Amino acid sequence: MLTLDYANCLSPRVGDHGLDPALLTPGAEPIRALADHTRSLAGTRGTGWERWRNLPFDPMRREHVSAVKAAAASCRGQFETLVVLGIGGSALGNIAVHSALTPPTWNLLPASARGGPRLFVLDNVDPSQVGAVLDFCAGQPGGLRSTLFNVISKSGETAETAAQFMIIRDRLKTALGPNYAGHVVAITDPAKGTMRQICNAEGYVTLPVPEGVGGRFSVLSPVGLFSAAMCGVDIDALLDGAAAMDARCADPDPLKNPAALLAFLLCTLGTTRGKTIHVMMPYCNALYLMADWYRQLWAESLGKRVDRQGREVFTGFTPIKALGATDQHSQVQLYREGPNDKVFGFLEVEAFERDITIPAGLGVPALAYLEAKPMSVLLNAEKRATEYAFVESRRPNYTIRFPRLDARHVGEFIQLWQVATAYAGLMLNIDAYDQPAVETGKVATFGLMGRSGYEKHLTQVTATLTPTPWVV
Amino acid sequence: MLTLDYANCLSPRVGDHGLDPALLTPGAEPIRALADHTRSLAGTRGTGWERWRNLPFDPMRREHVSAVKAAAASCRGQFETLVVLGIGGSALGNIAVHSALTPPTWNLLPASARGGPRLFVLDNVDPSQVGAVLDFCAGQPGGLRSTLFNVISKSGETAETAAQFMIIRDRLKTALGPNYAGHVVAITDPAKGTMRQICNAEGYVTLPVPEGVGGRFSVLSPVGLFSAAMCGVDIDALLDGAAAMDARCADPDPLKNPAALLAFLLCTLGTTRGKTIHVMMPYCNALYLMADWYRQLWAESLGKRVDRQGREVFTGFTPIKALGATDQHSQVQLYREGPNDKVFGFLEVEAFERDITIPAGLGVPALAYLEAKPMSVLLNAEKRATEYAFVESRRPNYTIRFPRLDARHVGEFIQLWQVATAYAGLMLNIDAYDQPAVETGKVATFGLMGRSGYEKHLTQVTATLTPTPWVV
Repeated sequence: MLTLDYANCLSPRVGDHGLDPALLTPGAEPIRALADHTRSLAGTRGTGWERWRNLPFDPMRREHVSAVKAAAASCRGQFETLVVLGIGGSALGNIAVHSALTPPTWNLLPASARGGPRLFVLDNVDPSQVGAVLDFCAGQPGGLRSTLFNVISKSGETAETAAQFMIIRDRLKTALGPNYAGHVVAITDPAKGTMRQICNAEGYVTLPVPEGVGGRFSVLSPVGLFSAAMCGVDIDALLDGAAAMDARCADPDPLKNPAALLAFLLCTLGTTRGKTIHVMMPYCNALYLMADWYRQLWAESLGKRVDRQGREVFTGFTPIKALGATDQHSQVQLYREGPNDKVFGFLEVEAFERDITIPAGLGVPALAYLEAKPMSVLLNAEKRATEYAFVESRRPNYTIRFPRLDARHVGEFIQLWQVATAYAGLMLNIDAYDQPAVETGKVATFGLMGRSGYEKHLTQVTATLTPTPWVV
Repeated sequence: MLTLDYANCLSPRVGDHGLDPALLTPGAEPIRALADHTRSLAGTRGTGWERWRNLPFDPMRREHVSAVKAAAASCRGQFETLVVLGIGGSALGNIAVHSALTPPTWNLLPASARGGPRLFVLDNVDPSQVGAVLDFCAGQPGGLRSTLFNVISKSGETAETAAQFMIIRDRLKTALGPNYAGHVVAITDPAKGTMRQICNAEGYVTLPVPEGVGGRFSVLSPVGLFSAAMCGVDIDALLDGAAAMDARCADPDPLKNPAALLAFLLCTLGTTRGKTIHVMMPYCNALYLMADWYRQLWAESLGKRVDRQGREVFTGFTPIKALGATDQHSQVQLYREGPNDKVFGFLEVEAFERDITIPAGLGVPALAYLEAKPMSVLLNAEKRATEYAFVESRRPNYTIRFPRLDARHVGEFIQLWQVATAYAGLMLNIDAYDQPAVETGKVATFGLMGRSGYEKHLTQVTATLTPTPWVV
């Protein structure tokens, strides 16, 4: 079970840069407000834009898991490489789960040592990146015959994913002829939209993006589960972990509810103590890309111009990913001596699945203290030392502790942050489920790309960014 | 030649969130002050902690390049895999240069298509990461016989690098016997320190960490050049680019000096407009990890508690890396509608070395606008659209434009930021070359690891972080 240790967010440890523990006593006003939020979230559970909370539970779970497993079974053994086409919420969860639960050398291992295909996630329209990956796939024995493409797009109209899809469809048809469709699994709207029409016309295997589940809350739906299942991740354990954490996060006593507490600490430190930058710093390489998934969730959900009453608030916190111990040698100087404007979230793994003992025998007195110690002991000592150094300079921080790094605990972690985000939306009094600011860039791109009907947007861009002498 | 386009940092574009262009007219006070800083930097050039500025110039350059090329030539063809052991400034530049100038599939390519060894940079003491990479190396034909280890540590006492080194030395000796030393190239202090003693005793090939070149300014020294040369990067072009940029950055007219302007814009927006978060957002996957190198340079150099007179200032800016277009689907909602506390730096590549045309033939009207367009046109349209969207919501931003992505332009980029950091240090009146805040964590780690003489630090850590009931 994950634990949240938040002592270093409180004033006994970090003085005025932390919160008074009296705020967290039963009967205190914040605790009563938190209990209200817990009731409110319990009320909306599984309705509207909170339907993502149903994902770890039957009947939704049963449907999805059986569809995902059937699709994965039909592909198993046929493909050496899986390429996911998606961006944002259709990529970040896939990357995070894969990185957390498979070795970093996954794509380099022989098939027998992997137990699943190589995985590439193309989450951009960089021609060098896309070109290199497609070259690699085409250069395998049998060419593209050994590659499966998993296109993820609810509408099918996301420009980046659409462009990638048009390219791979063309290459597959050229290489494999009209029977190419067995090389595509599409995850899209089950009923409507451009991608749905294409799937119906071309005969792809499809899996649903469930109704009412936004991109950044979709990792526990087929969006995240299919690539995970293909690569041997125990998706049942992932969902078991999420379900167990969800129960803890519904506890009406906020002091026993990790999501309510996490949201309270971060929002309150942000709005009353000026800690508007929220750093996630895993002491574990495998969890580093989980921080990218968190970055989208926290930034896009809470970064809002207006509150629920339409008043301008420009709210939100800036999420940052850092890596321990690595970033001790890059960011900690700033973190300790720069502006005191951050809360630090450490992720700690108590027992690593494998360890390496630092051997004796070098015979250098200055390094004798490392001899015969497991590497994980050094890593966790560095985490503890950094926690101490942060407290010493009055920088609030907390630790989320993983007993082990496995699918169950990753599922707990995902649901913890998803529910915490919902609580934070309530506390900040904003809509955590929209992203209105993305529209401007989208239509400007259409204008710049010459899409019919968007001529006006092209004119606006050109008029606004007219060349100037301000170039050196 | 790189250009810096900073129109969107000025008030005609972003109103009060930008700077008045009058500040940037000849004779204006900031321009006079900038000219003073330029003279001051010219005066210290190549002395004290600014000796890194000599790296692109003879005689230092000639010495380093010939030593690096000789070491690389003696290793060429003998090793399939190169593993760098280093952390912070002994890893970030290596990773950044490699990622910028080789394809993302480098380690997956057959030797014939690479023209250099596979590269791993072990920049942490995560046993899962280190274990997976060492397993991979040991599992190659001939075992560790085909792997070269490049250990980078000025003193040899950095705990993480020392631990890695102790492990690989032991494994090499076990696998290869007493002649293992040919599998190690060490980059370290040329005269003194623990690693120098080890090198002398064990007979490794060594390259120097030059005197007076701090870790975060060392990428253009052998620290960064050896792994680059091994992997086929044109290190002469890298240094040519750095030298050319250095000359531009010494221009006594600040309006023609990109480093002085960049430092002025960022420091002034930071200190007078509250833009304390500095985002670097390449629209190019290959440049994404260059932003990690920049993060160290900017954070560790400028994040300081006291100024040169010892007054408490808690200065510095928080660097963030983001990736375009990917993070449009993750961070741009916050960037446009959250607190207006950031400056955005776009990196744009005008001509990609390779491109992919999005094919026609799908027959979907909503996607027709993408047909027959090169992917790079879509990527750069998204960049332009985001720039427009930021201006529309009054978010200051600038663009550093690469005509092409090659070694020369990467060299220009590196020197631009290094010199800009030196200017920023002068403007903020702080020492850009120390990192005093790192010490506390270092000695606390020694205490926690049981190093003799650090018992007091263990006691302090334990007393400060005594267990509390604040865990859920």
